[in-house]
Amino acid sequence: MALNENWFTEICAEGGSAFSLELKDKIHEERTPFQLLEIYETRHFGTLMTLDGLIMLTDRDNFIYHEMITHPALFSHPDPKRVLIIGGGDCGSLREVLKHGGVELAEQVEIDEQVTRAAEKYFPELCESNNDPRARFRFTDGIRWVAAADPASYDVIIIDSTDPIGPAAGLFSEPFYGACRRALTAEGILMAQSESPLFHLNILKRMHAAMRETGFHDITTLHFPQCSYPSGWWSTTMACKHATPQGLRQTAARQRPFSTRYYNAAVHAAAAVLPQSIAEALAKQ
Amino acid sequence: MALNENWFTEICAEGGSAFSLELKDKIHEERTPFQLLEIYETRHFGTLMTLDGLIMLTDRDNFIYHEMITHPALFSHPDPKRVLIIGGGDCGSLREVLKHGGVELAEQVEIDEQVTRAAEKYFPELCESNNDPRARFRFTDGIRWVAAADPASYDVIIIDSTDPIGPAAGLFSEPFYGACRRALTAEGILMAQSESPLFHLNILKRMHAAMRETGFHDITTLHFPQCSYPSGWWSTTMACKHATPQGLRQTAARQRPFSTRYYNAAVHAAAAVLPQSIAEALAKQ
Repeated sequence: MALNENWFTEICAEGGSAFSLELKDKIHEERTPFQLLEIYETRHFGTLMTLDGLIMLTDRDNFIYHEMITHPALFSHPDPKRVLIIGGGDCGSLREVLKHGGVELAEQVEIDEQVTRAAEKYFPELCESNNDPRARFRFTDGIRWVAAADPASYDVIIIDSTDPIGPAAGLFSEPFYGACRRALTAEGILMAQSESPLFHLNILKRMHAAMRETGFHDITTLHFPQCSYPSGWWSTTMACKHATPQGLRQTAARQRPFSTRYYNAAVHAAAAVLPQSIAEALAKQ
Repeated sequence: MALNENWFTEICAEGGSAFSLELKDKIHEERTPFQLLEIYETRHFGTLMTLDGLIMLTDRDNFIYHEMITHPALFSHPDPKRVLIIGGGDCGSLREVLKHGGVELAEQVEIDEQVTRAAEKYFPELCESNNDPRARFRFTDGIRWVAAADPASYDVIIIDSTDPIGPAAGLFSEPFYGACRRALTAEGILMAQSESPLFHLNILKRMHAAMRETGFHDITTLHFPQCSYPSGWWSTTMACKHATPQGLRQTAARQRPFSTRYYNAAVHAAAAVLPQSIAEALAKQ
């Protein structure tokens, strides 16, 4: 069946697949200094943001990604106070981070200020904590920011980036992981979005290798459904600076004083159980 | 971006979404007595089978579904010998069932013989156990078959059906679950495909309620990614006739003498951990 002009379609060339959302309207289009930013109202997915024609997030399913790129790291660090988010311009990760009462600073370093301005206007729910006094916004290059950071200045660094093509490629590289390691405290945790286990297993393998080479320990991939990303299956990967990290704070995760829609302590552990063939592929390196 | 005629597209109206696969060729088209059956060669998903324009399976990702609708049930029953598969005409579930050495009979009741004939021709891998002397093929109506079955004649019944619209609607109903319960042995297990947790939570809730009303116990939904089904996120739901079932045979699942690509004992347990909001929705009934 053919889709008419009332649909937004994202083709994933390497997957030989495409995902489409039925639209009501395009409500914003803007060429920022970095990319083409478009906002749509969809029929059943609420508001949709795309960058250069690729789906960044929808109202309906962004909760899974945002919860799974933040809480596993924050509940694995023994006492996260200073958190750095690289990318994450839609502010959804920032909101989740700020749900943790112990966090004293949540710094978001997004290269494209217009993404955050659009999120404030079109995704107000994700931006509800933007005025929290613990939030800091830096609209600059994440790689340079981390390179210039004082050593041991962050407890958690979250790489909430686009795909490893174009401007975000450097965010998947060994030198960048090295800079992150230096900027992390002794028990620091690095967390990064790590693409689709079905379509991008090679990227995932390279990330594991690069994190290990950089000196990170206990490299853990968590997987979860993500309807609007290629293959509908996505992952985040977490790595520890300390050689013998303490792991998930079970009680804190179970008794968290805030609500979640996907994450809980049991889901955290379950998401880290990899399917047989993915576990074999990552172990074989 | 628009898709040209080299793509197969399935629209999910209730989701407001669509999934497309890039094609090389259509290699078969047939109007069976029951439905329109088409087979395509895709660019990156191998062979694709559709029924009435809906994706049934692809070479690339069917392993997840077939493993997750069979092994969790067979490793939860203490000693499954007689297994009934309702639907499952592509023979992928049959193949997984026959990997269990203790199984003495695997009976596949598919209403549309042409689906199995096409699978034999275009999905030979899935049909590699069709000549196993333990396999039986019945091309007839599954609801009638179960109604006519002797009481306590099967250890496991697997409902490997299409969506609960049209001919398969009856397979999601309380009377049918009642007939299955009667046809199951005392420690019998019912396993059914149970749609998308994102798009079809109401169907999932109704299934749980209907299975409970019918007298089943320990109703467990397992969730997993399934790229080529709507939302990319799918589930199977398992229910026990016995009030105090013994649960997963850990050692047997861990030491299984056959290979799997998705399933293992840890994945079994992890897939049954439901995301916070899904767990809440199913508990609230």
